[in-house]
Amino acid sequence: GWGDLGAFGEPSKETPNLDQMASEGMLFLDFYTANPLCSPSRAALLTGRLPVRNGFYTTNAHARNAYTPQDIVGGIPDSELLLPELLKKAGYINKIIGKWHLGHRPQFHPLKHGFDEWFGSPNCHFGPFDNRALPNIPVYRDWEMIGRYYEDFKIDLKTGEANLTQIYLQEALDFISKQQASQQPFFLYWAIDATHAPVYASKQFLGTSQRGLYGDAVREIDDSVGKILKHLQKLGISENTFVFFTSDNGAALISAPKQGGNNGPFLCGKQTTFEGGMREPAIAWWPGHIPAGGVSHQLGSVMDLFTTGLSLAGLQPPGDRQIDGIDLLPAILQGKLIDRPIFYYRGNEMMAVRVGLYKAHYWTWSNSWEEYSKGINFCPGQNVSGVTTHTQEEHTNLPLLFHLGRDPGEKYPLSFTSEEYQRAMERISVIVQQHKATMVPGVPQLNVCDKAVMNWSPPGCEKLGKCLKPPKSDPQKCFWPH
Amino acid sequence: GWGDLGAFGEPSKETPNLDQMASEGMLFLDFYTANPLCSPSRAALLTGRLPVRNGFYTTNAHARNAYTPQDIVGGIPDSELLLPELLKKAGYINKIIGKWHLGHRPQFHPLKHGFDEWFGSPNCHFGPFDNRALPNIPVYRDWEMIGRYYEDFKIDLKTGEANLTQIYLQEALDFISKQQASQQPFFLYWAIDATHAPVYASKQFLGTSQRGLYGDAVREIDDSVGKILKHLQKLGISENTFVFFTSDNGAALISAPKQGGNNGPFLCGKQTTFEGGMREPAIAWWPGHIPAGGVSHQLGSVMDLFTTGLSLAGLQPPGDRQIDGIDLLPAILQGKLIDRPIFYYRGNEMMAVRVGLYKAHYWTWSNSWEEYSKGINFCPGQNVSGVTTHTQEEHTNLPLLFHLGRDPGEKYPLSFTSEEYQRAMERISVIVQQHKATMVPGVPQLNVCDKAVMNWSPPGCEKLGKCLKPPKSDPQKCFWPH
Repeated sequence: GWGDLGAFGEPSKETPNLDQMASEGMLFLDFYTANPLCSPSRAALLTGRLPVRNGFYTTNAHARNAYTPQDIVGGIPDSELLLPELLKKAGYINKIIGKWHLGHRPQFHPLKHGFDEWFGSPNCHFGPFDNRALPNIPVYRDWEMIGRYYEDFKIDLKTGEANLTQIYLQEALDFISKQQASQQPFFLYWAIDATHAPVYASKQFLGTSQRGLYGDAVREIDDSVGKILKHLQKLGISENTFVFFTSDNGAALISAPKQGGNNGPFLCGKQTTFEGGMREPAIAWWPGHIPAGGVSHQLGSVMDLFTTGLSLAGLQPPGDRQIDGIDLLPAILQGKLIDRPIFYYRGNEMMAVRVGLYKAHYWTWSNSWEEYSKGINFCPGQNVSGVTTHTQEEHTNLPLLFHLGRDPGEKYPLSFTSEEYQRAMERISVIVQQHKATMVPGVPQLNVCDKAVMNWSPPGCEKLGKCLKPPKSDPQKCFWPH
Repeated sequence: GWGDLGAFGEPSKETPNLDQMASEGMLFLDFYTANPLCSPSRAALLTGRLPVRNGFYTTNAHARNAYTPQDIVGGIPDSELLLPELLKKAGYINKIIGKWHLGHRPQFHPLKHGFDEWFGSPNCHFGPFDNRALPNIPVYRDWEMIGRYYEDFKIDLKTGEANLTQIYLQEALDFISKQQASQQPFFLYWAIDATHAPVYASKQFLGTSQRGLYGDAVREIDDSVGKILKHLQKLGISENTFVFFTSDNGAALISAPKQGGNNGPFLCGKQTTFEGGMREPAIAWWPGHIPAGGVSHQLGSVMDLFTTGLSLAGLQPPGDRQIDGIDLLPAILQGKLIDRPIFYYRGNEMMAVRVGLYKAHYWTWSNSWEEYSKGINFCPGQNVSGVTTHTQEEHTNLPLLFHLGRDPGEKYPLSFTSEEYQRAMERISVIVQQHKATMVPGVPQLNVCDKAVMNWSPPGCEKLGKCLKPPKSDPQKCFWPH
């Protein structure tokens, strides 16, 4: 979450390495994900395109978040061009460490989409599963699985102990050393997931945070980032390596306080299109290029990392499709402010848009009464009348407008009759109309689920004797409650 | 508010000077006021004692915040020893610039309580008043008034323009220069009030903040602090001058968003004993003595500035009375953590106590249904069931317990039946019992109001032709709604 780092105001200030990264680099205060949930956010990062364009959304119901559980049939389409695919043209070696989450069936394998190496898993680490109704999630090295979570890669749900972040850290250090030795440019996508419930940390970090297990996990990530940056410096390639730290969605508040994070002064959390769900911590680091201690109000997006990554490699973004990411280098290196909107989607619906300091909500929804009454609350302790609604409320004729400078917490909608409202909405309406008029949605990938496609028998399972028998195929519409 | 500074996570990060002060000094993350309202907080700062001891409270109703409006009869008792009175013994020259707020009748004048110089006002700057029902607040230089707010010291309520902070800044710089020239040690209490509604800023700061007028005022204060620190450095006395920045209560949220601040991830604001009402931004600065970039989790209080101030001057706190403040120097200079509780009072009632990371609420109350239904809301957008109550709820038999590390926002009371609850409450109960058993409340100063004591004819009014005729004395019980 935005508020989980000391540099962003977490009241325990337990992230000295990330805070130092910020003090040596540039802090982005207005940086967004493209979706308040994992898979679509990651698909957007790697394609530079909104999930509604790259297919990482659902049309099964209105404005529903969807992702890639084990029974998802879809994944990243071959027609999408991913950042590593393009970087290859400039001679880059690309590695993903950690959670892929863009589909786990063979055609969606990261090595089929531009990555040269992979260590990690296709789906989220939750479980443990019994390998009957649900198989445990496989961990891959490159083309083949080398084991499964909870079996070969232990996660102790009672104590919260797991050494996965340490394994992911070592993988990163080794990859960087190897690339430096071979003098080949590299792209490393270090997609650790220790703060995702069920939260885990290594033994050496357990109990070290005053924030509990979640804080232990944050501290381990912080420590790892520090070690990666120091490694770059030790190898003498820090001035040659652009590093960006961010998150894929706001901190989940449903698992709080034991496994939940902090979205600072923002409203709600993961799953919602309020600021708490979509504004992310973000730090750019590149000693010798980025002025130390910089703070940027550039409206940024994870999708910009696609375009910025290409720019760093001297490449142009593909010209045959709509790219939503922009090149952040002028903002990072010259302190320029580039005018651009931020669109907040939930599934197939544009829920809100930010233009400058104004944010207009065209739809509001936290979650359904049905889910809420079961105790699922994405806005615990928060309640803004008419805003954190439990029915999907349409405001397209008269959007709810907030000024995020005066009111970062989205608590005080501007009066519809005010001059300020009229003036701001005139500008915003033009942008929204243009966006909607030119929107060509991709084929939705997250509509169909089938237990037969789960991780029963991933490549490599034979060698390990870990192949499981899939049930008969029975494709269904996935049910997305949020 | 805690969250109003960039260093504490304000999402616009518009306080470069305070942030630099923090990076050169020590940030306190767990620093508290002694009361969620102005007068009692300031009385506590200058006496080192809880308001319930020094008389800055009311018994007119249960657990009510009270302060010093114009019709207050009481003020700081002669029996209280103020920091400047004691510093005099060590040869200090003491000046207060800004809001005094410890009583405005002649016997309460700051120059009768240890200050050598005063520029500012006895009460809050709100108005304008018509000088018939209510006189405008006088501005004093030393013993005599030199004008009144809105008359001689303009505050434009329409534009928010007032140059008062600039005047207060110049007073501070001049005083420091004079003291440096005369080689006399000094204590400067710089009590500016630009962020108190009605919020104001100088012309050069108006419209410069993305946070609106409140942000303009914060930026002007930030700029002024920077100028004061630079002035100390320029005069070559920065290594000889201990500077502490803090606030008297959490940001007021009733005046938000136009004139309201930010309490970060904390619950509610001014007037309440939730963290948002009482946890304060705090920075200690003393180049050459305080290690740069320090962060302290020492539980601190404005009352500690009394004891720490004495310690810096080589003085002992008075031994004939209970002092609640502790000497923070071991925490500041050697990074020690001193174990001590924080008590949260509202008027005559101990509402809550913090011990380590645990906070136990013995009473909860945000405000009354009657006030709330009029639109007075100290917790806008926040609603924690059973916690932000609109009736005074007693929990003395089974306090509501929060772990502020895992749950800084006080959203998840610990289960009464948990082992953690039992263990923590055992420790806390002993501390509370001892506190209550040894508590000797002072004579309450904030019970009686009388329109005859208002600022009709302050000393010096004759020279200015600004004396007004007081009404007949008619002492009444003050009404304190919160």
